[in-house]
Amino acid sequence: MGAEFQMNTQLSPGIQAMLPLLYAAWADRHLNLKEIHAIRKRAADLPFLDAEDKRLLVAWSDPAYPPARELFQRWHTLVRNGAEQLPPERLASLAELGSLLGHAAEGFAPDRQAFWEAQLPALTELELGLGGVDETTYRSLFPRYDQRNKLQEFTEEASVDPAVLQAILDGPWAEPIARVKDILQRPSFERSILRLKEDYRAQVLAWCEELGREGIGALAFPKAYGGEDDMAAYSVAFETLGYHDLSLTIKFGVQFGLWGGAVANLGTQRHHDKYLQKTGTLELPGCFAMTETGHGSNVRGLETTAVYDHQTRELIVHSPNEDAGKEYIGNALHSRLAAVFCQLIVDGESHGVHAVVVPLRDAKHELLPGIRVEDNGYKLGLNGVDNGRIWFSQVRVPVDNLLDKYGGITPEGQYYSPIENPSRRFFTMLGTLVGGRVCVPRAGLSAAKTALAIAVRYGLRRRQFAADPLKAETLILDYPNQQRRLLPLVAKAYATQFGLDYLLHRYIDRKPEDMQEIEAMAAGLKAYATWFTTAAIQECREATGGKGYLAENRFAELKADTDIFTTFEGDNTVLLQLLAKSLLSDFKKSFQEDGSFAVLKYMGRRMTTIVTEQNPFTIRQTDREHLTSRTFYQAAFEFRARRLVSTLAQRLRAYIKEGESAYAAGLRCQTHMIEAAQAWVEALVLEKSLARVDALASGHPAKALLKKTVQLYALHTIETHSGWYLESDYITGQKSKAIRKAVDVLCSELRPDAATLVNGFGIPDALLAAPIALY
Amino acid sequence: MGAEFQMNTQLSPGIQAMLPLLYAAWADRHLNLKEIHAIRKRAADLPFLDAEDKRLLVAWSDPAYPPARELFQRWHTLVRNGAEQLPPERLASLAELGSLLGHAAEGFAPDRQAFWEAQLPALTELELGLGGVDETTYRSLFPRYDQRNKLQEFTEEASVDPAVLQAILDGPWAEPIARVKDILQRPSFERSILRLKEDYRAQVLAWCEELGREGIGALAFPKAYGGEDDMAAYSVAFETLGYHDLSLTIKFGVQFGLWGGAVANLGTQRHHDKYLQKTGTLELPGCFAMTETGHGSNVRGLETTAVYDHQTRELIVHSPNEDAGKEYIGNALHSRLAAVFCQLIVDGESHGVHAVVVPLRDAKHELLPGIRVEDNGYKLGLNGVDNGRIWFSQVRVPVDNLLDKYGGITPEGQYYSPIENPSRRFFTMLGTLVGGRVCVPRAGLSAAKTALAIAVRYGLRRRQFAADPLKAETLILDYPNQQRRLLPLVAKAYATQFGLDYLLHRYIDRKPEDMQEIEAMAAGLKAYATWFTTAAIQECREATGGKGYLAENRFAELKADTDIFTTFEGDNTVLLQLLAKSLLSDFKKSFQEDGSFAVLKYMGRRMTTIVTEQNPFTIRQTDREHLTSRTFYQAAFEFRARRLVSTLAQRLRAYIKEGESAYAAGLRCQTHMIEAAQAWVEALVLEKSLARVDALASGHPAKALLKKTVQLYALHTIETHSGWYLESDYITGQKSKAIRKAVDVLCSELRPDAATLVNGFGIPDALLAAPIALY
Repeated sequence: MGAEFQMNTQLSPGIQAMLPLLYAAWADRHLNLKEIHAIRKRAADLPFLDAEDKRLLVAWSDPAYPPARELFQRWHTLVRNGAEQLPPERLASLAELGSLLGHAAEGFAPDRQAFWEAQLPALTELELGLGGVDETTYRSLFPRYDQRNKLQEFTEEASVDPAVLQAILDGPWAEPIARVKDILQRPSFERSILRLKEDYRAQVLAWCEELGREGIGALAFPKAYGGEDDMAAYSVAFETLGYHDLSLTIKFGVQFGLWGGAVANLGTQRHHDKYLQKTGTLELPGCFAMTETGHGSNVRGLETTAVYDHQTRELIVHSPNEDAGKEYIGNALHSRLAAVFCQLIVDGESHGVHAVVVPLRDAKHELLPGIRVEDNGYKLGLNGVDNGRIWFSQVRVPVDNLLDKYGGITPEGQYYSPIENPSRRFFTMLGTLVGGRVCVPRAGLSAAKTALAIAVRYGLRRRQFAADPLKAETLILDYPNQQRRLLPLVAKAYATQFGLDYLLHRYIDRKPEDMQEIEAMAAGLKAYATWFTTAAIQECREATGGKGYLAENRFAELKADTDIFTTFEGDNTVLLQLLAKSLLSDFKKSFQEDGSFAVLKYMGRRMTTIVTEQNPFTIRQTDREHLTSRTFYQAAFEFRARRLVSTLAQRLRAYIKEGESAYAAGLRCQTHMIEAAQAWVEALVLEKSLARVDALASGHPAKALLKKTVQLYALHTIETHSGWYLESDYITGQKSKAIRKAVDVLCSELRPDAATLVNGFGIPDALLAAPIALY
Repeated sequence: MGAEFQMNTQLSPGIQAMLPLLYAAWADRHLNLKEIHAIRKRAADLPFLDAEDKRLLVAWSDPAYPPARELFQRWHTLVRNGAEQLPPERLASLAELGSLLGHAAEGFAPDRQAFWEAQLPALTELELGLGGVDETTYRSLFPRYDQRNKLQEFTEEASVDPAVLQAILDGPWAEPIARVKDILQRPSFERSILRLKEDYRAQVLAWCEELGREGIGALAFPKAYGGEDDMAAYSVAFETLGYHDLSLTIKFGVQFGLWGGAVANLGTQRHHDKYLQKTGTLELPGCFAMTETGHGSNVRGLETTAVYDHQTRELIVHSPNEDAGKEYIGNALHSRLAAVFCQLIVDGESHGVHAVVVPLRDAKHELLPGIRVEDNGYKLGLNGVDNGRIWFSQVRVPVDNLLDKYGGITPEGQYYSPIENPSRRFFTMLGTLVGGRVCVPRAGLSAAKTALAIAVRYGLRRRQFAADPLKAETLILDYPNQQRRLLPLVAKAYATQFGLDYLLHRYIDRKPEDMQEIEAMAAGLKAYATWFTTAAIQECREATGGKGYLAENRFAELKADTDIFTTFEGDNTVLLQLLAKSLLSDFKKSFQEDGSFAVLKYMGRRMTTIVTEQNPFTIRQTDREHLTSRTFYQAAFEFRARRLVSTLAQRLRAYIKEGESAYAAGLRCQTHMIEAAQAWVEALVLEKSLARVDALASGHPAKALLKKTVQLYALHTIETHSGWYLESDYITGQKSKAIRKAVDVLCSELRPDAATLVNGFGIPDALLAAPIALY
């Protein structure tokens, strides 16, 4: 210690040791309850204070009578002088400073060193007991405070670098993801609250235009039209926009994915030449007019007609009634053109749904004759998207405007199509639009990840209730119920992304013969992921209490904007029925192909399951090693998926045997179909998650963490279906209880990694933006 | 037939029979697909058409070539002339008219009458096959169309008058409910979309003022202060406002219930005299400043202090740090006064949380010195409520401003309280605020009922997909999955209201010794009902697809506004833990009171349960009579509630025996506590629902319907917990499946009464307002 360290002899060593705390308590010229308690009650037990010291402390801790300015100034000088003696690498600790001052007041007597060091824990308790000393107080006392070690943030607890997780999640697409994140952090993309739809829509349009100029919109288009022929990059760009503003995501998707996609996939060379380049730059805004007021899920039932007029070689596009108007059409107010889905009628004969390009507005943005557009008005969310209704009254367009890749009209006025079967033609046309179902759940997942990152980070910061009124309150993520609410959702976010990544790969590398499988998978995953999004954001809002209700903390928009994801691009319940039908036909096919051998094979598998999984030993096995082994949980997922499909097939067959129509039988099994499809998706998600973990080298730093995360996903999912598993004699009651317990344990084991897991999503703080999530 | 009925001899009888349909199809000068199909395909099989007739029909059904105006006019004249012959009591039916015209064209040959009558079904099929003929078409053909019977609305199917159900739900409070509904239908209460919070808040303030002038705000206040001393009327008024605008509900509740309630229940005569009258009329707007940024659930941890100054006999109200600011305070921007909850400190000694009236603004609405108020900004919902943050900087108020019913300061500066134990004092003060927890879930239920009424009525109107493309599409409520989504929620809405009604009665008739029980019940029911509200509205939004996403259809506001109900007036998870603690102490008490006899009694009950409910026969019983008997389902609810509490007590005891603190043991059982509390609430809700059904006379027209509704609630709830019941060996897998099936059957049986059940909520169409719910 330097010689310049002069002690004030008027104060006892005990009081001097207390001075840093006393100063900090009064720093705001006010004592709160914790401060009074700290000084009066906790201090009462300190061995270095005598009766006189204690009397003085009581006098100096009456909140009605703050210390006079001169006294307070003197405390500051004394404490500050002491702090200057502390080497800069030491902690900024009032307790350590107190111990030093006490020892100094005794002239640094060597035989007292141990005594003063022994006071550190009690003084630290006191310091924590003050209940959060202001940063400015520390800064006013400790030189170079900002370089000193402080109470470390939670991230210290974790063993894995979040960047490692992010690299796994980004996979081969790190570059386009980073590129879009960079753009989104430009000043031009700054968010503001735009409550009036006109303002908000104008902002979103401007953002879309900027993305168009940057080439992001055209990513999936052929290079000849300014694109990069990279559907995967387009898809991850779409999903990354979900971290910024979901109205932007959707408007971007409407312009480049739906309108652009219709031209690219349903049109032919002449349409590409005419529209694609300017679509990619947003010079030519277009919309995708499929849904009608009267027909949403039932696309085949669309009522808009395009009647061919032989004399003029025109198509007459017409909305036969009010409910046949196009509904919820995104970009309806900003568009110049529309891809209109209508029944193509030649010679009074309908050839089913086709798309026709219909100009809506002229160069001055005036509506063309025969077109009526109405604003859909305010919606629950996505108010930055200009959704509208569109009606056509005998609007004539040249027959060239028919997007005729899958069906057109010859110069002689004959309908022709490369696909003879009208039903197959219809599904082929719709199939080209599966890209939407590949992308939408990814954007939904971005929203869910954002919500989880905010809620988990808040849970690591917010404290409420204490075991002991004088101790720090408990971090809310240390409550088991809070862990139960959030951590299985974090695990499910990882698993769902692994499932969606697989779908994206399959979609990118698709061959025509894979399409049916990919469509079924996309239908199922879209439903699964978007329901997850809705549920996860809701849970996060509730788990953050009143703070979560403030718009600034982002749940308001995340919830509202994604709410429609379960409906658009196919209503989830309808999509799951689509998937179920495809599973049934696979199931049937496997029997037909293999003939009677298939029955034997099926019976054999049932027997194997009964022997290896449903035997009296396994259904009772409750040790942790078994429960967290994939021998158990992967088999359980597969059993459920398989069983629900086979019993569904049996029930349908039975109803049809009883004389019901296939339609009526399907209706009776509707909820069963939906359940079977969900089970199949879950098995897929688990399988692909395990594959991702397996693909990591055995020493990979994140392997153990991800493995546990997938285990939590698996066991929590089984727990959710425990009724079904019990009912199916797949587990006993004891095992069901053991699974619940295993989920509890996994949650608490993952608690130290909670921050790492959500930071691994790689959402920049600037985009996360919620004040409760930032430090 | 009159002699003036001249037939046109140029058209064959067959074509004449087709004319009404042909005219209707072309009425809009356009043929849509169904119309073409109806005329070309369906008509092909009609026995009264010959080859020439059919050739003519094909010519007249080419959409590219509409009939010339003269031809069309001639059809109209012919058809209209025929229609005039129809007696006015006959249906407005194109088919009947066609049959008449065909017969007329044959000169009404008596031997042909049977033939033409036999054509009616086929012609009716054709008429329906047109897919919705426009009203104006009917009107242009049938004289006095509006008095004729048309295709009847669904309400015909139902057997019970919705007014009967409404009378049951309204119970003794029909008068105040009707009074508020009347006010809400005044032109001054017309809703409009006010996106900017300033506009919306001004509107809600004006509405509150009108309710104040009408005496609705003061309903619960003593008559001496302009009130009616009628807490029940206040409560149902609050809930009825929930049918109009939830921002209004909440602002009304803040002013009259929270601020007014704090003055009335925590203050004494001098406060009543000074504030109550003008509070009831809203001349004196006030707020309830309890929650702080740092402390919400943990009210005891509030940091705001009120320090007593002996010299001036003032209280110094102060926010010691930023997080000690009052947060989410409703009415913060409009208030003149605040009831501020703070730690009362006398002589440096804290006496716990007390409320002090602190003036915020002067007569010119300028903030007073030392007060800082910040707008909370936009929220997820309730943007018509002016929530804000409030900080106090050494604000001095006379000691008289202390609301001192439960604790005050003598003229000598001594603290005194009629309740010695500080913990009991704290809970007594908070207990006076239980009214909020009685009312809030009722308002949430109003929102849920609104959503259900809209979704069910839409489901009875919206059609999608058809078994046969030429038939009418299926009503979406005829899909089993849609019934499964909505009908159990309708049933739960009834049951929940019956539970909440019981609570309201208990609260109104309360005696001091009942308070603890009522508080626990209110905590549990508030959590149960508000979670139900969130889930029900979400399901309704999804079940109405894209239409549900449009703001005009009201789910947007219903969802957003009620989302915070699970958090405010006590976070639901915290409330359920409160209830669980109270159940545990009852459980413990019953053992202490009865000594060792209690153990025997408990064991006896367990044995009885095992013998009567868990015997090998009953756990396998799957017949409908058993499943829908209360012997089964009420026992199942009670078993679950009892078992979860007793196992909770056992687990806690075991942990404590192992040396854990009560706090740590409680943490480990947190999810168990929440589950036990929920089970108890469910048993209560079921019990009170059954009591309401029992109370109806045996011939009561709604008795059977309500009984079935309660059965659906009961079985659906058991189904939700099937995993637990299976795990507890209370049912077998076969029985679990039978329960699922019974829920399916109950849903389909209640389908014809769906409209009656939601109309029974008694929400006036003008308040329901959603276009998709109106006809």
